[in-house]
Amino acid sequence: MIKRRKSRVVYIRDIGVGGDNEIRVESMTKVPAKNEKEIINQINELEKAGCEIVRIALPDLESCEKIPVIKKNTNIPIVGDIHFDYKIALKAIDNGIDSIRINPGNIRDKEKVKLIVKLLKERKISVRIGVNSGSIDRKKFPFLNADSMVESAMEHIKILEEEGFYDIIVSLKSTDILTTIESYEKFAKIRDYPLHIGITEAGTKFSGSIKSAIGLGILLYKGLGDTIRVSLSSSPVDEVMVAYKILKFLNLRENIIEVISCPTCARAEFDVMKIAEEVEKNFFNLRKNIKIAIMGCVVNGPGEAKDADIGFAGSGKKVALFVNGKVLKIIEPENIIKEIENYIKNL
Amino acid sequence: MIKRRKSRVVYIRDIGVGGDNEIRVESMTKVPAKNEKEIINQINELEKAGCEIVRIALPDLESCEKIPVIKKNTNIPIVGDIHFDYKIALKAIDNGIDSIRINPGNIRDKEKVKLIVKLLKERKISVRIGVNSGSIDRKKFPFLNADSMVESAMEHIKILEEEGFYDIIVSLKSTDILTTIESYEKFAKIRDYPLHIGITEAGTKFSGSIKSAIGLGILLYKGLGDTIRVSLSSSPVDEVMVAYKILKFLNLRENIIEVISCPTCARAEFDVMKIAEEVEKNFFNLRKNIKIAIMGCVVNGPGEAKDADIGFAGSGKKVALFVNGKVLKIIEPENIIKEIENYIKNL
Repeated sequence: MIKRRKSRVVYIRDIGVGGDNEIRVESMTKVPAKNEKEIINQINELEKAGCEIVRIALPDLESCEKIPVIKKNTNIPIVGDIHFDYKIALKAIDNGIDSIRINPGNIRDKEKVKLIVKLLKERKISVRIGVNSGSIDRKKFPFLNADSMVESAMEHIKILEEEGFYDIIVSLKSTDILTTIESYEKFAKIRDYPLHIGITEAGTKFSGSIKSAIGLGILLYKGLGDTIRVSLSSSPVDEVMVAYKILKFLNLRENIIEVISCPTCARAEFDVMKIAEEVEKNFFNLRKNIKIAIMGCVVNGPGEAKDADIGFAGSGKKVALFVNGKVLKIIEPENIIKEIENYIKNL
Repeated sequence: MIKRRKSRVVYIRDIGVGGDNEIRVESMTKVPAKNEKEIINQINELEKAGCEIVRIALPDLESCEKIPVIKKNTNIPIVGDIHFDYKIALKAIDNGIDSIRINPGNIRDKEKVKLIVKLLKERKISVRIGVNSGSIDRKKFPFLNADSMVESAMEHIKILEEEGFYDIIVSLKSTDILTTIESYEKFAKIRDYPLHIGITEAGTKFSGSIKSAIGLGILLYKGLGDTIRVSLSSSPVDEVMVAYKILKFLNLRENIIEVISCPTCARAEFDVMKIAEEVEKNFFNLRKNIKIAIMGCVVNGPGEAKDADIGFAGSGKKVALFVNGKVLKIIEPENIIKEIENYIKNL
């Protein structure tokens, strides 16, 4: 029902971004590359959660030396986040990074950008030009608004284009939702590069999820966005979970479970809210179109519960398990997770 | 920056909804009216949290008898939610309810609606016509979509209009975000009644907040919505908190605190995420424009932290307290809440 903006396709290794490709889900590790074991674990956890592209910070040359071992022990493509130093960009590319993100405010020297581009073209590596409201060159752009965000991106895009380089993904993130939306809208009118969307420094897990849901929700509704990152002061796995929820709620991706729960009332004799949250936490990364219902009681469950693939409804201190609308047996509430696991195993 | 749709103003007791009035925040109690102490407590908690209009379920005549004692012990206007029985509506109005919500699918008899209208006009009480995807008359409207949502509302609105009654607020809630948006858009083209907006059966606190944030975010961005309810399988106080966050993030209401926190990294020696969540929980109902920053360290706090009214930044195992960008003293992390309380007291 949402009509996506037409964009060109840019690859991050083998993952197509833009065009008719599914909207991708990204995240960023919160562990320094130097801690090789930890970062490998985090990337593998992210992959398990459904993350399709992962970014890692490369603050120095030493971090770049870890790229080969990280790549060897993980599967999803890795984007290096590079600020300030073009030498880091060159070394990252040389060491096998799949894509790089450059913050335009930071590598100021045109000649150095050209050096990077030469290597990018040789290795067929894409670039994200990632504008961030916090790091815009305020001497050049004294006013922080959609125009300066777009101009800041265009300045660097033009350097790349002059070199005949077009494998570009663009992001224009502000902490302010309305500025972010206006920036992407303005940019979408002048170029067809795929858009990486996000709201920067959104906040804590709860508050930041709400802020990201509003901002990304509006952008996606307008058809803007080819790959998304939810930025949270929380685990990167949470970022992936929230990203999929946003896409699911707008019918933009399939194969995501849905947990239906009633608002609970005095009739419920087991903790519906707690169990619904647990079910979500346990199965959010299941890439299947399954609807799970957790209802306080059989009597007044909303109509939707009947459509659930598997459901549980309070029955005294116990819980009735129903599959495709029919009650199969009565179980203890603490066995709900196990029963869902069994159901999935037998699909 | 968001341009609101022009609507007429309808009053719920003394609270104006629509027109140039601030977008109102509503919730609904999750306690039966018969439990008079509990419902009074919950309404007073909701008021403290910033709830401006509260709805209570009135499933039977007995519940209506509690209206006077509930009103006597609470301050905010009370809307009675009435299904099925017009006698309940009449009794609720007679017992002093401030407004009623009728689900059009349920009171089918035109003559009975007329009886209610007569009393509404006498007492100058407004009505919300609350269409809900789950309770649409499927015999009349076999297809559940925006058109049938709007037609279902119009059927009842016309009965009211024929009686010269226009103090109407309208809601058109579906569990599907896109259907909800389309319904409100279609309705907004044909009538100027204020809109109560919400996504019905959104889900658990976390997931339902994300779903509501997307749906309400898009509607509000389009200028639609004069009073909002976030429906969660959670405490109604959470619903109010989320509603204010949504309005704040779209710059639609002022006097809401903002908590900025860094994404945290290895440098942070205190639990930034946990404390940021605690600060949000403790102060979300403070109706002041205060920005509070919780940063892992002083060195790399984002630019925004400097703009914070009061901030805390890790300094070894302790925390530096800064006000208006200047460090005042070093404190223990466990005293952060107390320091914020002191700061607010001295404003």
